[in-house]
Amino acid sequence: RIKAAGLKLQLCTNETQATREDFVRKLRAMGFDISVAQVTAPAPAACGLLRERGLRPHLLVHHDLLPEFAEIDKTNPNCVVLGDAAENFTYANLNEAFRLLIGMEKPVLISLGKGRYYKETDGLKLDVGAYMKALEYACDVQAEVVGKPAKRFFESALAELGVPPEQAIMIGDDIVSDVGGAQQCGMRALQVRTGKYRPSDENHPLVKPDAYVNNLAEAVDIILQQL
Amino acid sequence: RIKAAGLKLQLCTNETQATREDFVRKLRAMGFDISVAQVTAPAPAACGLLRERGLRPHLLVHHDLLPEFAEIDKTNPNCVVLGDAAENFTYANLNEAFRLLIGMEKPVLISLGKGRYYKETDGLKLDVGAYMKALEYACDVQAEVVGKPAKRFFESALAELGVPPEQAIMIGDDIVSDVGGAQQCGMRALQVRTGKYRPSDENHPLVKPDAYVNNLAEAVDIILQQL
Repeated sequence: RIKAAGLKLQLCTNETQATREDFVRKLRAMGFDISVAQVTAPAPAACGLLRERGLRPHLLVHHDLLPEFAEIDKTNPNCVVLGDAAENFTYANLNEAFRLLIGMEKPVLISLGKGRYYKETDGLKLDVGAYMKALEYACDVQAEVVGKPAKRFFESALAELGVPPEQAIMIGDDIVSDVGGAQQCGMRALQVRTGKYRPSDENHPLVKPDAYVNNLAEAVDIILQQL
Repeated sequence: RIKAAGLKLQLCTNETQATREDFVRKLRAMGFDISVAQVTAPAPAACGLLRERGLRPHLLVHHDLLPEFAEIDKTNPNCVVLGDAAENFTYANLNEAFRLLIGMEKPVLISLGKGRYYKETDGLKLDVGAYMKALEYACDVQAEVVGKPAKRFFESALAELGVPPEQAIMIGDDIVSDVGGAQQCGMRALQVRTGKYRPSDENHPLVKPDAYVNNLAEAVDIILQQL
């Protein structure tokens, strides 16, 4: 309905356990007509940043994310890129990433998100943000976070769309990463009352969405009504 | 020489990879005539705190440290005690400790130190402080740190000695944990120029030892001269 109305659509995800290709495959199987170019995700954003600054990463990321970095020079690393590595978050791998960082004259740590935790079918898991904090503390360094709510991340999504922030609207379930991030970038933002949404979000001390919707379909209704 | 001069001696260690018994055995093999009662260490300090507050810990600590907690009730845990668990810092164990904490109405995290890293024969390793920061961030909680430089830790060593802080002197190689911690407790402190000592410590922005000595023997010389 969004597309049929002639509006542009871009998906902004903090997914770092799979490539955009996998992500799109999953959405297409659910009936969403989406292409890889319509997905803004932390790994390709990090690749842009690495190229821009001539950085060669040591990767501590999920195995399924590795193809996103296939074209990147990883020899003789001068930075560490941290993602939600899940089972790859071993004691040995964490020490290895730490040693590389602490051995750098000016350690550069790039983190694909700063989430605290997330839920899987077998329970809650520590997210990349927790491991980022561990390395930040050990190396006395501040990570550069790629992904929502980084302003740069929303800006690159807007650049893909080719529209200024005041003509774009964000729909998301995360009060801070989705709604807050988009608003700080000059966009309006709707919070859906599904997924991560919690009733307590409606009393958030810092972030207030432009509107609430009960689900994605209702978000589309509202947007199309205002055309 | 300290003992022969009639002075009292207490060892304050942040060692959490072994029991005091193991620690004393190692020192005795080096020729130091030391008993277990002369060692102030984080694990027994934590046990005191657990008993005092009726806390039952889930332990994420080094396997060799477990005997220190043998007498502590660990059923139905209502806090997490974190030590330098080394190989026990697995993804599964970290998630388990995290889930217990996040499931508590008011999470209680007790950390046996807050060191950033340390050196072993096979290279640098992340210390307990890094994992403490990961859990603090994920659970939005502040850990209670047992061990140097906590004031309470030095106070319990002084209580063992039965002397007030102004009559005690600390000798250590760590500018912050040893020297700074002891001074904050009202003791004087010498920094030895061995072990962890780095020349840059002498320009530390916050901590200044009462004197420097080149090694432990020189510290003893100075102390005995002032009797």
